Amino acid sequence: MGKRIAFWFEFASTYSYLSAMRIERAAADLGVTIAWEPFLLGPIFAAQGWTSSPFNLFPAKGRYMWRDMERLCARQGLPLTRPDPFPQNGLPAARLAMVAREMGHIAPFVRAVYAAQFGRGLVISDPQVLAECWAEAGLPPEAMEQAKSPEIKAALFAQGERAAALDLFGAPSFVVGEEVFWGDDRLDQALALAAQS
Amino acid sequence: MGKRIAFWFEFASTYSYLSAMRIERAAADLGVTIAWEPFLLGPIFAAQGWTSSPFNLFPAKGRYMWRDMERLCARQGLPLTRPDPFPQNGLPAARLAMVAREMGHIAPFVRAVYAAQFGRGLVISDPQVLAECWAEAGLPPEAMEQAKSPEIKAALFAQGERAAALDLFGAPSFVVGEEVFWGDDRLDQALALAAQS
Repeated sequence: MGKRIAFWFEFASTYSYLSAMRIERAAADLGVTIAWEPFLLGPIFAAQGWTSSPFNLFPAKGRYMWRDMERLCARQGLPLTRPDPFPQNGLPAARLAMVAREMGHIAPFVRAVYAAQFGRGLVISDPQVLAECWAEAGLPPEAMEQAKSPEIKAALFAQGERAAALDLFGAPSFVVGEEVFWGDDRLDQALALAAQS
Repeated sequence: MGKRIAFWFEFASTYSYLSAMRIERAAADLGVTIAWEPFLLGPIFAAQGWTSSPFNLFPAKGRYMWRDMERLCARQGLPLTRPDPFPQNGLPAARLAMVAREMGHIAPFVRAVYAAQFGRGLVISDPQVLAECWAEAGLPPEAMEQAKSPEIKAALFAQGERAAALDLFGAPSFVVGEEVFWGDDRLDQALALAAQS
C-alpha cells in the first residue's frame, strides 16, 4: 500500500475542520498519500444512545470545545464562526463528497465545505451553499445530480459499515495499517507512522 | 500569581497518569509553578448521568483508549499495566493527597500512586498499597491517619465544588489564569501560556 493514511471525517465535526485544512500539506511533506473517507457519526452516536452531538448533550464539554477550537484555530490561522444550528446536517455534503471522490477530486470540495461551515458559519445542508462549494472546488455543476443516485447513497451507507467495522466512534479518525488514531491531536502521530510504512 | 499552572487530576484517570509523570520536569524547564489539585470525577460524571467511566460506558472508546495509552506510554518510556477493576476507587488516595499537600509534599505521593496503579496494576484503594506509596514519597507513617479527619474530608469535598465552579468535566485539566485546558494533549499548550504570564 505504501505510505498511506485514511482520513475519516464527518462534515459536522469541528475538530475534523482542523485536520481537513492541514492534512494535505502535512502529508505531502512526508510523502504520504491520503485516502479521504467521509462518514456519518449520527448512526454511531445513536448506537451508543446519543441523540445529538456530545457537545450538546454534555454542556460543560460543549462550552470547552468552542473555546478550545478558538485557541486552535487562532494557532492554525483559521477563521472560526459557530454555525447555527450545531451540529449541522452533513448528509447532503457527504453524498456529494462521495461523488467528488469518484471523480478523483474530493479534497478541494471537502475543504470548501469546512471553510463555508466553520470559517463563515454557513448552513451546509443548504443546496445553494453546497453548489457554491462545488463550484469553488472546480467540479462540473451537472455532476451534482449524481449525489441523489442509489449508487451514491449505497456507497455512503457502506462507509458507515466500514467505519463500524473499524470500531470508529468519533471524528476525525485516522487509520494507518491496523492502527487507529482519534482526534486532530493525533494527526501528526498517525502521519509519522504512515511515513515509516 | 506569577508563572503558575493548576493541575487537576483524578487518580483513576489514565491520561492523568501521563501528565503526572511529566509535568514537574516540563514545568521546571519553563520556570512554571504547579498547584496540585486532586479531585473526584465520580460526582461530575454522575451529574451528567454517567454511572461509570466513559471508557466502560462506551466500549469502542474504551478499547481505543487502552491502545492509545499503550502508544503514548511507549513514547514517554512509561510502563503500562491495566488495573483490575477499572476504574479504580481513587477516594482514599485523594484524601491522602490532600494531607500530603498540607505537608507541602504532594508531588512524590501522586507519582507513587500513579506508578503503582498504571505502572504495576496495583489496587490503589488497598491500604497496604497506599502505605507503600506514602513511604515511597518519604512521608511519615503516622500522618496517614489525618486522611480520616473531618477537615480533610471537607477539604476534598471543597475541591469538587471548585472543580464544578471551574466547569471541569474530565481529567487531567489544567487551569492557567482564566483559561481551562483538558487532556494530557493540552499540557504543553497550557504550560506555554503559563510561561508567558
